[in-house]
Amino acid sequence: MMRAGPIALAVVMLTAPPLLAEPAAQPRTMAEVLAASVPADWRPLDPQDTLYLQLASGRVVIELAPAFAPGHVANLKTLVRQKYFDGLAIVRSQDNFVVQWGDAEGKRSLGEARATLPPEFTVPLRPDLPFTRLPDPDGYAAEVGFSGGFPAARDPKAGQAWLAHCYGMVGAGRGNEPESGNGSELYVVTGHAPRQLDRNIALVGRVVRGMELLSVLPRGTGPLGFYEQPSQHVPITSVRVAVDVPEAERERIEVLRTDTATFAALVEARRNRRDDWYKVPAGFIDLCNVPLPVRSKQ
Amino acid sequence: MMRAGPIALAVVMLTAPPLLAEPAAQPRTMAEVLAASVPADWRPLDPQDTLYLQLASGRVVIELAPAFAPGHVANLKTLVRQKYFDGLAIVRSQDNFVVQWGDAEGKRSLGEARATLPPEFTVPLRPDLPFTRLPDPDGYAAEVGFSGGFPAARDPKAGQAWLAHCYGMVGAGRGNEPESGNGSELYVVTGHAPRQLDRNIALVGRVVRGMELLSVLPRGTGPLGFYEQPSQHVPITSVRVAVDVPEAERERIEVLRTDTATFAALVEARRNRRDDWYKVPAGFIDLCNVPLPVRSKQ
Repeated sequence: MMRAGPIALAVVMLTAPPLLAEPAAQPRTMAEVLAASVPADWRPLDPQDTLYLQLASGRVVIELAPAFAPGHVANLKTLVRQKYFDGLAIVRSQDNFVVQWGDAEGKRSLGEARATLPPEFTVPLRPDLPFTRLPDPDGYAAEVGFSGGFPAARDPKAGQAWLAHCYGMVGAGRGNEPESGNGSELYVVTGHAPRQLDRNIALVGRVVRGMELLSVLPRGTGPLGFYEQPSQHVPITSVRVAVDVPEAERERIEVLRTDTATFAALVEARRNRRDDWYKVPAGFIDLCNVPLPVRSKQ
Repeated sequence: MMRAGPIALAVVMLTAPPLLAEPAAQPRTMAEVLAASVPADWRPLDPQDTLYLQLASGRVVIELAPAFAPGHVANLKTLVRQKYFDGLAIVRSQDNFVVQWGDAEGKRSLGEARATLPPEFTVPLRPDLPFTRLPDPDGYAAEVGFSGGFPAARDPKAGQAWLAHCYGMVGAGRGNEPESGNGSELYVVTGHAPRQLDRNIALVGRVVRGMELLSVLPRGTGPLGFYEQPSQHVPITSVRVAVDVPEAERERIEVLRTDTATFAALVEARRNRRDDWYKVPAGFIDLCNVPLPVRSKQ
């Protein structure tokens, strides 16, 4: 008796049924929504703003978010191009929270990179900043949705926008001083979205492939999930900007655009699942429960 | 330059400052809230409703929730006492979702246990069902809070209550038929809360210790995160009801009661963090972001 368990394919009612007599269209699963997508629904990653974090276990692909953290992204790329991270290690894995890497012993020179940066915890609400708003309310922000493929939030009254701490988001660790984050120490969310961090620290991107290499790392037994022994550190082979890697060695992947009708259909497919498994559609979706599909380049 | 990274201790303003001239009381961290707790704030686990899932890597402690799923809990205990799970395996680990174990090949007899059960996806709202409501709204339910230490939700209009799919919650897998879950296949939430499962499947308890043994299991590469090779299965040494284990071998742990002023102070400490690290307190907390403290018995 093999059970599929708690998951099942997502289904959506077509959004614009005919006004009159025809029977309702068949619900669509998320897989069907994606299968019906057109090439323009997808975009490649910009190799100028993509990082490859190479571990012994494989490659983690990170899309950077210069629209939300231009200073941090620039500093991080400066560090990467100095090979700052090569030979450093993942030093922290806290259950249901984050993994983190950097220069645990604080001995490596930042070189041309800056030691402090303006915070970039929020950015001004600008007309050119895309935003596809979710239909549902959010407890942590006045408005939530997606901006250029990233989960994001806005406060129109304060005139601010920011990225949201969902699973897989990458941020720049900092000390107590807001300016102390510089991109030399990075963390990735590996648990339930710690949205209380929003507006308190700079998010710089998100993992689009390879999360399973980070999320399974043994949890550190020291305070905050830091590894207690250097022998427990997980070595970083290298970090590279994709454009600096020979084209043949780059990941050929695309991500679904979040400003398309296909994405809207996908969101609705997940807000209300009406397949054979689900008995009560939620009628709601939490920002961090919206999937952000990635596929191999067609 | 060691950074503590994105976490910091939580702080709370005391809830009842003097009306007049005295200076505001010092904020309290979550650690301080817990340090000021009294013995009555804590409760032991009931060994009749506690399971030990023994893996080669250690012991996972699960508190059962008979108030919400009496039939499933009884059936599960029947299975456990038949040693149904001993020698079975964890067969699924889907990134940012669940791990799951059971009889992958469907060859083991259920013995005295029932093959089907009434769903128990919700229970009637009863006066004797405790509920400490969170002050904040929730998108998936009219009211959310805690019932006997479990994250829970209520719909007064529908007259229903149910457990919520937060990190660490344990449920009984089922097929498409609502009655097909019987406790012989269990899953644990290991990612961002999949609240869309609420009211669609029976939750039977939560992991109170040992989550880090489950959350790091390699992700399965088959559909839905099932392991593709039997050699990848993670063997289950045994599952026992705590009361059936010699007292000297039981876990001596206590959990914080969720119907106390101490718990309310803890929630407020996490809704608004005002320590040296946080710059913008959230003023809100998501149900599944509320910590449920566990300690060794004093």
